[in-house]
Amino acid sequence: MQAWKDYQEKNKDRFLNELLDLLRIPSVSAKSEHKADMVSCAEAVKQRLLEAGADTVTIYETAGHPLVYGEKMIDPSKPTVLVYGHYDVQPADPLNLWNSPPFEPLIKDGKIFARGSCDDKGQFYMHVKALETMVQTNTLSTNIKFCIEGEEEVGSPNLATFVKANKELLKADVVLISDTAMISMEHPSIDIGVRGLSYIEVEVTGPNRDLHSGVYGGAVANPITILAKMIASCHDENNHITIPGFYDDVVEATTEERKLMAAAPYNEEEYKTDLGVKELWGEKGFTSNERTGIRPTLELNGIWGGYTGEGAKTVLPSKAFAKISARLVPNQSSEVITEKLIRYFQSIAPAGVTVKASEHHGGEPYMTPIDSKGYKAAAAAIKDTFGKDAIPVRGGGSIPICALFEKELGIKIVFMGFGLDSDNLHSPNEKYDLFNFYKGIETIPHFHKRFAEM
Amino acid sequence: MQAWKDYQEKNKDRFLNELLDLLRIPSVSAKSEHKADMVSCAEAVKQRLLEAGADTVTIYETAGHPLVYGEKMIDPSKPTVLVYGHYDVQPADPLNLWNSPPFEPLIKDGKIFARGSCDDKGQFYMHVKALETMVQTNTLSTNIKFCIEGEEEVGSPNLATFVKANKELLKADVVLISDTAMISMEHPSIDIGVRGLSYIEVEVTGPNRDLHSGVYGGAVANPITILAKMIASCHDENNHITIPGFYDDVVEATTEERKLMAAAPYNEEEYKTDLGVKELWGEKGFTSNERTGIRPTLELNGIWGGYTGEGAKTVLPSKAFAKISARLVPNQSSEVITEKLIRYFQSIAPAGVTVKASEHHGGEPYMTPIDSKGYKAAAAAIKDTFGKDAIPVRGGGSIPICALFEKELGIKIVFMGFGLDSDNLHSPNEKYDLFNFYKGIETIPHFHKRFAEM
Repeated sequence: MQAWKDYQEKNKDRFLNELLDLLRIPSVSAKSEHKADMVSCAEAVKQRLLEAGADTVTIYETAGHPLVYGEKMIDPSKPTVLVYGHYDVQPADPLNLWNSPPFEPLIKDGKIFARGSCDDKGQFYMHVKALETMVQTNTLSTNIKFCIEGEEEVGSPNLATFVKANKELLKADVVLISDTAMISMEHPSIDIGVRGLSYIEVEVTGPNRDLHSGVYGGAVANPITILAKMIASCHDENNHITIPGFYDDVVEATTEERKLMAAAPYNEEEYKTDLGVKELWGEKGFTSNERTGIRPTLELNGIWGGYTGEGAKTVLPSKAFAKISARLVPNQSSEVITEKLIRYFQSIAPAGVTVKASEHHGGEPYMTPIDSKGYKAAAAAIKDTFGKDAIPVRGGGSIPICALFEKELGIKIVFMGFGLDSDNLHSPNEKYDLFNFYKGIETIPHFHKRFAEM
Repeated sequence: MQAWKDYQEKNKDRFLNELLDLLRIPSVSAKSEHKADMVSCAEAVKQRLLEAGADTVTIYETAGHPLVYGEKMIDPSKPTVLVYGHYDVQPADPLNLWNSPPFEPLIKDGKIFARGSCDDKGQFYMHVKALETMVQTNTLSTNIKFCIEGEEEVGSPNLATFVKANKELLKADVVLISDTAMISMEHPSIDIGVRGLSYIEVEVTGPNRDLHSGVYGGAVANPITILAKMIASCHDENNHITIPGFYDDVVEATTEERKLMAAAPYNEEEYKTDLGVKELWGEKGFTSNERTGIRPTLELNGIWGGYTGEGAKTVLPSKAFAKISARLVPNQSSEVITEKLIRYFQSIAPAGVTVKASEHHGGEPYMTPIDSKGYKAAAAAIKDTFGKDAIPVRGGGSIPICALFEKELGIKIVFMGFGLDSDNLHSPNEKYDLFNFYKGIETIPHFHKRFAEM
C-alpha cells in the first residue's frame, strides 16, 4: 500500500513529536503524587485520538485513574478490532541510574530514551497513527475501538468493572495489543502467550522497636535474618520453587513446543554479555528461553529493613519488608498462587516474629491459539512488511487483562508487539527504537486489512 | 558528703537545662551534612568544661570530627582519672517512629527523650557536673582529665592517632567511662566487659541494570535472592554462626562466671513483654544473658535492594546490599573476624553475581579485672550512694577504644554506666531517666574520693 507509506513518510516527524509530548507527562500510576499527571495524560490521549480521526472519544472515570475509550465505526457489517493499550508508566526510580531525565525524552543513536517510550506509550501510539494513516488515505477496512487505560502498571484494578459494565460498547471480533517484544527486527516474532502474575508484600516484625544490636543482638530474632531465611527457603538447590503446591496446575509444554523454542534464534554469549553476567541462573532442566517462557518463576522485587544510610549503625531493626512476585503459566491461577505464597510465608514464621503478608495486583496467564483469525492476520501483516515469517514465542511478562477480555467479551487476544527485550522496560534508561516505532505504524494497517479479508 | 548533695540539689535545674542545650545540637557523626553541628557541639563541650572548673580545655582537630580535651590538675602526687566520653550521637532514622523530635528534648514521666540523652551526652555530662560539684565544694581528691571525642558512633577512626601522639597528656591511673547500663536502679551493676565489633557492608551485583522481572526473571540470578541465601547460611538450625573459624579464638566463660550470671536478677517474661515478642531467639545452649554477654553474635543491621516504594514494581534489581556486624568476646580479634566475614561472603557467591564486601569500623572486646583498683573504687562508690553491692555483669555493647587505652597508656578501664537497657540506644525515642542522671552526678564524686583513698 504505497499510499500508506507515502503518508507516513511525509508525517513521520510530527508522529514522533506527538509521541515525545506524551512521554513528557509523568503518568506514574503507582504514585499518588502523580494523580494530576494521570488526568493530563488521559486528556492528551483523548485529544490525539480525535485528531487521528476517531468519531467519539470519552474519558471514563474509575475508582482509580481514568480510562480513555474511543472509536471509529465505518460499517457494522465489517469486523471490529479492539485496540488495548495503557498510558500509565512504571515509576522511574532509581533516578540516579538514568543517563537522561526519564520524562525529558532524548533521541540518541536512533532510539527514544524515556520512561514509557516502549511500555506502552510508544507502542499504543503506533495504533493512533495507524488509524490516522487509514483515515487520511480513506482505506479503513475494519471498525476500530480503543481502550487505553491508566492502571496497567498497578494491575488494572478497575478495568474489570469497566469491561463488565460496557460489554456492548467494547463488542469486537479481536483484541489487538502492542505491549510485547520481538526477538529482533531481523527475526520478527509474535508472542503467543503471556505469563500470569501473583505479587505479595511481606512484613516481618521482631521486637516492637529498633534495638541496640549489642545490647539485644543474639537474644532476639532479627527480622532481616528471619526474612532472609524465608526467602532463601523459596528455591531449592536446583532453583526449583519449594512453595507447597506451586507447580500443581502447571500444564507442561509439549515436546514439540520445546523443540520449536530451541530452534528460535538465541545466542547465550550475547545474552550474558548484554546483561553483564558471567553465568546464567535458573531452574535445572530448562533453557533460558524456557525459564522465561514456559516455566513459572518467583522473583524478589524489593527488600528493605534497618539502617540503609551512609556509614554504620548498630541497630537490630524492628521490621523488615520484601516485595515478591511470581510469574505464572497455564493453568496456574493468580488467586490460588497468591494464597499459597501468603500461607507459606505465614506458616514458616518462627514464633519470635510476626509475619504480615498482603496481596498486590495479580493476573492470569494467557495463550493465543495460533490457528485463530487474529494470530493469522498478525502473521500475514508481519510477512507483508518484514518479508519474513514471524516466529511464535511465549513472552515472559504479564498482561493481566487478557483473561478478562476473553472471559467477558468472548474474543481472542492477539499480541503484536514491536519492542525488544533490551528496551529496559521497568528499568532506568527505557528506550524504544525509532525504527521499531515506524515499523509498527507501517505494519498495523496491514493487520486491519488482513483481518478484514479473513 | 552532705556538701555535694546540697550543691547538687541547689543546682539541679541548671544541670538539666545545660544538658538539654547540648542535646539540641544534632551531632550525628555518621552523616557528613552534620559536620558543622559537630564543630558547634565540640565548642559547647569546651565551654561547659571551662565553666565547670577545668584549668585548660583544648579542641583538637582530627582527620574527622574534633576531639575535646580538658583537665583539672590539683597535685601531681595525687592519682589521675581520665574520663572518656563522646559527644557524637547515632543517626536518628527512622524519624517517623519518634514520638517527639529527636533533637528537641522532651521531659516526660521523669525521662529525657532525645537522641544522645543516654548515649552518651547525658552520661558524660554527669562527669562535667561532678567536676563542678567537687570544684565548688573544694573537695577534689584526684586530678581529672577529660577526653570527649566526636567519632565513637562511627568507630573512633582517629582516636588511636590522637592517643599515640599524646601519651604524656593523657597519662593517668585509670580510665573512667559512663557509656553502659545497669540492670536497674534497684539492682545496681557494673559492666566488667564490653564486646568487640566487626562491621561489614556487602554489595551483591547481578545483571548490569535493573531488569523487567517478567522478561528476565528465572533466567538471571536475582541479587536479593542470592543475598538472602548468603545471610540465611550464616546461622545453622541452632543459631550457631557458621562462618568458618568464627569461634576459634573465643575464651569460654568459666562455670563460676556462668553461675554468677544465672544468679543475677532477670525476668524472662518481663523481658519478652518489654520487647513485644512471644518467644526469644538465640544460640542453643545459652541463656539470654549469656547470648548478649559471653557469646559472640552476628546481626543484620540493614538490608536494601530493588523497589521499596509505594505499590508494586516488577523489577529484577541489579544490586542488593546489607550491613552486617558481629559482636566479639575475648580473645576474638576484630581484624581477624572482619577478614573472615568478608572472605566468607566472597567465597559463597555463585558465579551469576559479583560480591563486594567492605569494612566499616570495628573494635576489640575488653574486660575489666574485678580485683583492679578502678573496679573496687567504682563498687565502693555505688555502695556509698545506692546502699547496695553492685553486681558485676558483661555488657553486650562495644566501646572499641578500651583496648586502645589499655595498650597505649598501660592503664585499666572501669565502666560506671547509669543507663538502662530500655533506654532505646540507637533506636527511636532514646531516653535517659532524670533519676539516673542525678544519681550519676551524685555517685561520681564518691568514685574519685574512693579511688584517691585506695
